[in-house]
Amino acid sequence: MRNVLAIGAHPDDVELGCGATLLAHAAAGDTVTVLVLTGGEAGPGTANRFDEQRAAAHSLGASLRWGGLTDCTLTPDAATVRLIEGVIEETQADLVYVHAADDSHQDHRAAAAAARSAGRRLSRVLHYQSPSTLTFHPTVFVDVTAFITGKLAALKEHASQVELSAMVEPDAVEATARYWGSQARIGYAEPFEPTRMVFDLAPISSMPTRTRTTAAVDGERRARPRTPATVRV
Amino acid sequence: MRNVLAIGAHPDDVELGCGATLLAHAAAGDTVTVLVLTGGEAGPGTANRFDEQRAAAHSLGASLRWGGLTDCTLTPDAATVRLIEGVIEETQADLVYVHAADDSHQDHRAAAAAARSAGRRLSRVLHYQSPSTLTFHPTVFVDVTAFITGKLAALKEHASQVELSAMVEPDAVEATARYWGSQARIGYAEPFEPTRMVFDLAPISSMPTRTRTTAAVDGERRARPRTPATVRV
Amino acid sequence: MRNVLAIGAHPDDVELGCGATLLAHAAAGDTVTVLVLTGGEAGPGTANRFDEQRAAAHSLGASLRWGGLTDCTLTPDAATVRLIEGVIEETQADLVYVHAADDSHQDHRAAAAAARSAGRRLSRVLHYQSPSTLTFHPTVFVDVTAFITGKLAALKEHASQVELSAMVEPDAVEATARYWGSQARIGYAEPFEPTRMVFDLAPISSMPTRTRTTAAVDGERRARPRTPATVRV
Amino acid sequence: MRNVLAIGAHPDDVELGCGATLLAHAAAGDTVTVLVLTGGEAGPGTANRFDEQRAAAHSLGASLRWGGLTDCTLTPDAATVRLIEGVIEETQADLVYVHAADDSHQDHRAAAAAARSAGRRLSRVLHYQSPSTLTFHPTVFVDVTAFITGKLAALKEHASQVELSAMVEPDAVEATARYWGSQARIGYAEPFEPTRMVFDLAPISSMPTRTRTTAAVDGERRARPRTPATVRV
Amino acid sequence: MRNVLAIGAHPDDVELGCGATLLAHAAAGDTVTVLVLTGGEAGPGTANRFDEQRAAAHSLGASLRWGGLTDCTLTPDAATVRLIEGVIEETQADLVYVHAADDSHQDHRAAAAAARSAGRRLSRVLHYQSPSTLTFHPTVFVDVTAFITGKLAALKEHASQVELSAMVEPDAVEATARYWGSQARIGYAEPFEPTRMVFDLAPISSMPTRTRTTAAVDGERRARPRTPATVRV
Amino acid sequence: MRNVLAIGAHPDDVELGCGATLLAHAAAGDTVTVLVLTGGEAGPGTANRFDEQRAAAHSLGASLRWGGLTDCTLTPDAATVRLIEGVIEETQADLVYVHAADDSHQDHRAAAAAARSAGRRLSRVLHYQSPSTLTFHPTVFVDVTAFITGKLAALKEHASQVELSAMVEPDAVEATARYWGSQARIGYAEPFEPTRMVFDLAPISSMPTRTRTTAAVDGERRARPRTPATVRV
Repeated sequence: MRNVLAIGAHPDDVELGCGATLLAHAAAGDTVTVLVLTGGEAGPGTANRFDEQRAAAHSLGASLRWGGLTDCTLTPDAATVRLIEGVIEETQADLVYVHAADDSHQDHRAAAAAARSAGRRLSRVLHYQSPSTLTFHPTVFVDVTAFITGKLAALKEHASQVELSAMVEPDAVEATARYWGSQARIGYAEPFEPTRMVFDLAPISSMPTRTRTTAAVDGERRARPRTPATVRV
Repeated sequence: MRNVLAIGAHPDDVELGCGATLLAHAAAGDTVTVLVLTGGEAGPGTANRFDEQRAAAHSLGASLRWGGLTDCTLTPDAATVRLIEGVIEETQADLVYVHAADDSHQDHRAAAAAARSAGRRLSRVLHYQSPSTLTFHPTVFVDVTAFITGKLAALKEHASQVELSAMVEPDAVEATARYWGSQARIGYAEPFEPTRMVFDLAPISSMPTRTRTTAAVDGERRARPRTPATVRV
Repeated sequence: MRNVLAIGAHPDDVELGCGATLLAHAAAGDTVTVLVLTGGEAGPGTANRFDEQRAAAHSLGASLRWGGLTDCTLTPDAATVRLIEGVIEETQADLVYVHAADDSHQDHRAAAAAARSAGRRLSRVLHYQSPSTLTFHPTVFVDVTAFITGKLAALKEHASQVELSAMVEPDAVEATARYWGSQARIGYAEPFEPTRMVFDLAPISSMPTRTRTTAAVDGERRARPRTPATVRV
Repeated sequence: MRNVLAIGAHPDDVELGCGATLLAHAAAGDTVTVLVLTGGEAGPGTANRFDEQRAAAHSLGASLRWGGLTDCTLTPDAATVRLIEGVIEETQADLVYVHAADDSHQDHRAAAAAARSAGRRLSRVLHYQSPSTLTFHPTVFVDVTAFITGKLAALKEHASQVELSAMVEPDAVEATARYWGSQARIGYAEPFEPTRMVFDLAPISSMPTRTRTTAAVDGERRARPRTPATVRV
Repeated sequence: MRNVLAIGAHPDDVELGCGATLLAHAAAGDTVTVLVLTGGEAGPGTANRFDEQRAAAHSLGASLRWGGLTDCTLTPDAATVRLIEGVIEETQADLVYVHAADDSHQDHRAAAAAARSAGRRLSRVLHYQSPSTLTFHPTVFVDVTAFITGKLAALKEHASQVELSAMVEPDAVEATARYWGSQARIGYAEPFEPTRMVFDLAPISSMPTRTRTTAAVDGERRARPRTPATVRV
Repeated sequence: MRNVLAIGAHPDDVELGCGATLLAHAAAGDTVTVLVLTGGEAGPGTANRFDEQRAAAHSLGASLRWGGLTDCTLTPDAATVRLIEGVIEETQADLVYVHAADDSHQDHRAAAAAARSAGRRLSRVLHYQSPSTLTFHPTVFVDVTAFITGKLAALKEHASQVELSAMVEPDAVEATARYWGSQARIGYAEPFEPTRMVFDLAPISSMPTRTRTTAAVDGERRARPRTPATVRV
């Protein structure tokens, strides 16, 4: 069982970028947490975006956390890094999803950079594509053929954005998943650019713990214990 | 259970590039096949490289196939592509390891290109690093802390190369695994550059077949059946 | 009025890669020639692919030329370069479309490389995406919202491939155009990676000739006359 | 007729980066606006840089706007994004030129990032090279053989910089245009790296409007109306 | 004799990134200055990091300067740029080493960006790898086979970090040098990514000055004098 | 004193790509050998290109070797690799210059690939730019302000090409050197893309031999002896 953390700058970012993958994680028995850094108060519409996000996270089977930061002012400074570090530690996350680093939205760039800092000792940090993402060369894909309908449903919870934001186009969301699916030689896919991804050859459930007890097998090589992610970003 | 195919241009290439990962696959219960395209007859020494390779494959717990092509003359032409297609089909491989595409050795480039053609409909094609590899930006890693000793043992079976080839340096092999391990935030790692990699969120053993029966879950989206990999490279 | 040359390794490659753009060129009054280098005889099915390609080119409003080379054996050697040079010269092409350079199909790579050699003195060489294309970072797009239906119709002429080839999936073709359209901030788009593209600020029809008569405006800077593309590739 | 907006961080940046292209636009009948974000008050010399920039813009046939920001302190924050959004909206710009994103000058990086945000729904955003630009891979070029003399004249209006700044070297400016001209297979060229560029196959003047009325031609595909660029960067 | 300046964001950064190269410079008779921008006060442990850094610089044969900035808050703003410009001018540095630009630590990114600005007129700016560096493609290497022991000794002076920071692992430091050594076809190497590097074909000591007196040899080509690095970043 | 080997596919390639750098090497006392792989018999004109190349090499102060291969048919196969290996061994070359790998001319690509194979154990392999080179990101430069006149003189010896080939334009050659000079923050430069370059901190003349006698300084680390470059490409 993995502990998965998906980070977005605004309500709807996580659903757009990796909503179907989060459904796949939930279906596989993983624990999924969504961290939304800002309230998205600069977006179009007057709807309660907190309520929309709550409904969307619920439909993904995910817990929801708010970062409490201000829309359009995110920076990857020490405070943002520490905020994300705190959530990583609390959720014991071993797999982090976050915006791609090259994005025309300053908040997305900041979220990506801060998550990379906060996750500097994690072995699995994957970047998802947003409509505003620029250069993006995914090498890793998740098969979401069974979850694309669920993704669109989660997105629909963000009614204010689906109706009013020119960057949220459900038909493009579906076409994008089909495009990446054809690239991955499957039906529908969500694509990811890893900062790094250690992939598990053995089924996750059979792995005793996250620590490297494998050292028992190969005793003469000492694996250095990692201190908790609490000091020096 | 996966069916894994590791392809190398010469005896010792697979051991150098992904030997420890193959041990990890075997330990996870996967079926591993090694395909060596040439006999390595241009390498240094007079040893029987077929025997060396047989011993190495055995120590990795892998079946061994020979491509029967000539050292230093590999080209990624239709015949080489069909040869690899045949082995993919026979072994029902769903994960292929092969040389990186940018390599100063012409045989390595050819093996990478031909494997990409042959595996054009596969969802998992990963490229490993050789000592002669040039640009290489791995994004995917396998934790081989428990298998680095086994890798060095497999490599030792290629005694003629370990003793005579300037490109095979056991201390560099170990240092390289430790370097990539530090990049992956683990102990020792083998690094991979994916052409594409669909990663499985659910344990492999719980997935009924390789075909997309997921369509049952999401019926309104038709998944197109794939024809066998027998026509048009 | 431009003279446009679109080059494909096999019947259906040009339709898949830039069919809608060719329709847009024809609609703008440009002269369009399609050069198909091989007969595609290694593809699936027993249909007459020459007839299919003729019907497809007709539906695009394009002239058709055959290269007469053999499927799956293309190489970017001097003969292939000269073949393409000949067609460039004869059609007075000033804009060439061809496969992307990084592609898992050896014929596609060869077509791209040979066209770059043959077009080494042209100012507009654009690469289109095929289903087998690997790395692809398009920077230039054509709005094909009005021509996507026509593209799918042209593709349908290649009935043998649409029905039998796992690489030709009409729903993925449409999704791909919508995906790139969203990237280009329009409806549907075909994407291109330029080797180089000089873009014309003045309407094409108002430009006297392709030669650099602009030197008259800026007389002290001598523009060197280009010899015809007949020597040294 | 296009509405062109060229953005620079300091007086002289636009002339150095795309001055000849702006002359070509003016010659083609396009409307050209230059937006200079700061007063360049940290540059060498005591000259009135506002007067210099006014004379330069005049010689390019361009309207001039000032951003009113402070030299050496630009950041791509929401305020800068909104400032540029305002000018895009007012000038109805459909083509934006701005600094390259990878530049050793922090103001240039900030101008590029803010323009990408502000122009996130535009289909034509092109980046020009400055003397301080780092990685730069142009794929699009404008033939400026007829306008290089005019560019040097516009640059001369910035006398304080031409005389005192080590980064402004007229002979290097001309050599650079000739270098890129040889790369583009023409005489003199200005090079551009697109964030994205939709290129028009039909003469611009014959296109009714910038909105997607093409939907009439291809009615069954609904093109989603874009809201004005007033909300959420 | 060169004047070398190595810049790090925190105590221990320079030792980790290019400590052995600095020893090689000292051995070659070059003058070496280390500039540490912050006191590293956010790192683990309670040790006096100023004392540790002083001892480490001493063991490298380098002069030490402090930037006096605050750990975890570095930004590449005008003040940081001017600080580095001042040290470049004072030390007459003609070769600068600094962090790689793509790094998950915000201070490292800021140090790299500010040094590129400050060194915008220098012909030799080289970036070293840190444990937190992300994409890194070194093209230039220094043979440090004779200096790797000295590097580890200098690192040991930062006892608080070696003992407590999960990012400082002496065995990985040595493995990394051996890995890059094998890439460079030597024993042990430190790798560098140049912003630009003019390399000297004649022995440095035989070159009269850093200014371009070579103009005497090739008189008709005027080399433009560079003004001191005191204006406009 | 270095032993420098510059490799070109055709007569005039080396002069165009690194002629001024070779003059700088000769001026520094290095031994320079030029290897021209083919006779350039497919180029324009009827002149004796062997005589032209002899005169050009003479004017560069270089020895000349011919590869004896056929213009427009180069391939990076084992025979070409061995040919280059032989010249490397005979000249004891420790620095190789050759075409860039990404070039629209098939002979240039082949020369680059074969030289990388042949020089797989060398620590200094640098790629120069040709007029037909495509992607090129130089990171290393040589100051050729004093040698640009000599370069143009050497080029003039190839009168048949200067007069007849559209790819050889002396004014573009000079502009290119000035462009790269401005990028390198010097007057005129020749740019290089390294496969790898170990740069020497101590003056070359003071280094006893090319072998790693430095091991004496750092005795506990064993440097593995390299076998001569005679086996397995």
